[in-house]
Amino acid sequence: MRGVVMYAPGDVRVEDREDPEIIEPTDAVIRLSATCVCGSDLWPYRGVEPVDRQVMGHEYVGVVEEVGSAVRNVGVGDFVVGSFVISDNTCEICRSGYQSKCVHASFVAQSIGTQAERARIPHADGTLVATPGQPGPELIPSLLATSDVLGTGWFAADAAQAGPGRTVAVVGDGAVGLMGVLAARELGAERIIAMSRHADRQDLARFYGATDIVAERGEEGVERVRELTEGLGAHSVIEAVGTQESMMQAVRSTRPGGYVGYVGVAHDVELPGEELFFSAVHLHGGPAPVRRFLPDLIRRVWDREIDPGRVFDLSLPLDQAAEGYRAMDERRAVKTLLTL
Amino acid sequence: MRGVVMYAPGDVRVEDREDPEIIEPTDAVIRLSATCVCGSDLWPYRGVEPVDRQVMGHEYVGVVEEVGSAVRNVGVGDFVVGSFVISDNTCEICRSGYQSKCVHASFVAQSIGTQAERARIPHADGTLVATPGQPGPELIPSLLATSDVLGTGWFAADAAQAGPGRTVAVVGDGAVGLMGVLAARELGAERIIAMSRHADRQDLARFYGATDIVAERGEEGVERVRELTEGLGAHSVIEAVGTQESMMQAVRSTRPGGYVGYVGVAHDVELPGEELFFSAVHLHGGPAPVRRFLPDLIRRVWDREIDPGRVFDLSLPLDQAAEGYRAMDERRAVKTLLTL
Repeated sequence: MRGVVMYAPGDVRVEDREDPEIIEPTDAVIRLSATCVCGSDLWPYRGVEPVDRQVMGHEYVGVVEEVGSAVRNVGVGDFVVGSFVISDNTCEICRSGYQSKCVHASFVAQSIGTQAERARIPHADGTLVATPGQPGPELIPSLLATSDVLGTGWFAADAAQAGPGRTVAVVGDGAVGLMGVLAARELGAERIIAMSRHADRQDLARFYGATDIVAERGEEGVERVRELTEGLGAHSVIEAVGTQESMMQAVRSTRPGGYVGYVGVAHDVELPGEELFFSAVHLHGGPAPVRRFLPDLIRRVWDREIDPGRVFDLSLPLDQAAEGYRAMDERRAVKTLLTL
Repeated sequence: MRGVVMYAPGDVRVEDREDPEIIEPTDAVIRLSATCVCGSDLWPYRGVEPVDRQVMGHEYVGVVEEVGSAVRNVGVGDFVVGSFVISDNTCEICRSGYQSKCVHASFVAQSIGTQAERARIPHADGTLVATPGQPGPELIPSLLATSDVLGTGWFAADAAQAGPGRTVAVVGDGAVGLMGVLAARELGAERIIAMSRHADRQDLARFYGATDIVAERGEEGVERVRELTEGLGAHSVIEAVGTQESMMQAVRSTRPGGYVGYVGVAHDVELPGEELFFSAVHLHGGPAPVRRFLPDLIRRVWDREIDPGRVFDLSLPLDQAAEGYRAMDERRAVKTLLTL
C-alpha cells in the first residue's frame, strides 16, 4: 500500500509500505477514506523533534476491512472514526475519561502512521467508534476533524471550563485553536476572544463563533484581553500552541481562579512556579482524551449541528502529501486533508 | 503595644510598636486573643526571602475594639477570625471564591503583622468573620487554626478534589499538610496517604485521618504511592511544601486526570512543561482563599466536629516569640501558638 514516510526534517515521501494485517485478536484493519496532516507533524518536519524514516499520520476515518476474533463493537463494513491514541476504554483511567492515558495507550503517530491507504488499529473495540451509517462525502472532512483536531480543541475548552456566562480567550489560531473556538461556542460561552494576526484565520475564527479578535501577542495581547474583561482576565483560556510565550500568554490572560486548558504539545517550556502560584489559575491539559468526546462529536457532525471540516482549507491526494506539509509549514494552509 | 519584628534572618525580636488606629472607615482594630508562627514565616527566617525589620504574623483571632464608620458586619466586642489576606468579599473575584486575589487584596503579613497585641484590619466587613459567641479558651487554638493553616489545608484538599471514593496523598507533614489530611477526611476521602518521616508527625497525621504513611521521599515516595494505588497514582495530591522536589513528587504521585492542589509557596520552582503535559494532571493552587471557607470552618470548630488546634504543639507568651521561631526552624515544634 501507499503511505507517508518522513525521512528527515522537511523530507516527506509517499512510498510503498507493508500492508497491515491482524496481529492481535483485538485488532481491526481499516481502509482509510481520508487522513490529514496535523500541526504536531510540523514539529519533526521543522526539526524540533527528532525524526528518521518515521511513518506519519494519526488522524483517520475509514471502513473496517477485517477484525480480529475478539472484536465485538465494530464489524467489517462499518465506517469508523478513531482517536489518535489507542485505548482499551475499559481500564480505570479510561473509565475516568482519560483514554489518552489508558494503561494500554499507544500513540498512533509513532506506531501506525495513518497517512496511508490502510491501518491496523489495536484495541479496536476501545479505540474506534462507528458512525450511524455510511456518511456522504460532504461529511468526511468533519468526521475526520473529530479524530484529533476537534476532539483536542473540545478537550481544551472543557479543561478551560468554557460555558455559559464565561469569557473564553483562545491563544493560537491554528486548526486546534479554531476548533477550541467552535467548542467554546457549542459549550455556551458568552464571549470568545480569538487571538490571531492573520486575516483568513480571523475570518474562520469568526465563522466558528469568535466575538472578539485580538491581534496583539505576548504582553500586549494579555493587556488587550484584560481591557476586554474589566481588568480581570478571561474566565477560561485555551492554549493551542505549546511554546513558552504562548503558555505564559495563556496563564497571564486568565483571571484568578480561572481555568487554562492547554493542548499545545509543550516544547522547551518551563513554568515559573512562583508566578503560577500567585496567579491562582487552574491548569489542565495534555494529550486530549478524544475518545471521551467522540460519540458526542460524531453525533453533532452527523446531525449537521457543527461544521468542523471547514478547518481543512487544502485538499490533496495522498501522493501529494509533501506539498500538504509544505503548505502548512509556510502557513499557506491551516490544515491539509489527504484524499484516498 | 508589644509586637514581633524580624530584623534579619534568624533575628526575631519583640518590641514596642505603634498602637494601631482606625484610618479608613472600613477598618476595624482588634485586640488579639492569640496568634502564631506560620511555616511561611520560616522563609525569611532562613534567608530564603529577604527581610529587613519586618513586622511579622498574619494569623489571628481576637476581639473587636473599635470599628470605622462604614463597618456593618462586625461590632465592638465581637470575637472574630480573619484570613491572612485582606479582601472586600464583594468584588467579582471574591464572589467567585478567590478572596485571596480580591481586587483590594493585601497580605496581612506584609502590611499589618499580627504577632502583636493589637492589629488594624482593613476591609473589616469583608475580611473578618464573627464567631457565634465568645469562645471558651479551649476553642482558641482551633479557631486560630482556621485563619490560615486549616483554611489553607482545606483549600488544598478542595483544589485536589478530595472526596468520597478518592485516594488522597499529602506531600508535606508540616501544619498545612496535617490540616490537608484533616480536610481530606472531612471531605470524605476513602484513603489518605500521609508522606512523613517523623514519628510524631506520623502520629498526628493518623490522628487527623491518615490511613497510610509513606516515609520515603522523592522518586521512592512516588513509587510507594503507586504501589498503594494499583500502579495508577493517587486521585488527589496535596502539595504543602513548595520546593522543586515536593512539586514534582506531587505531580508524579497523581494519576492521569487526577488533581494536584498545591499550597506550599513555590520558591525557585520550574515546572517542566512537557512532563506536565504528558502527566495529564489538573494543577491548582496558590494563596488560599481562606475567607471562602471560614464560615464553614468556624462552624465545624464551634460544633466540636474538628480539632485543628492539636496542630499547635508549642505554646509560648508573645514575648518569647523568638524561641517559638527557633523551635519550628529546628523542627522541635510543628507550630507555635503565641498567647497574649
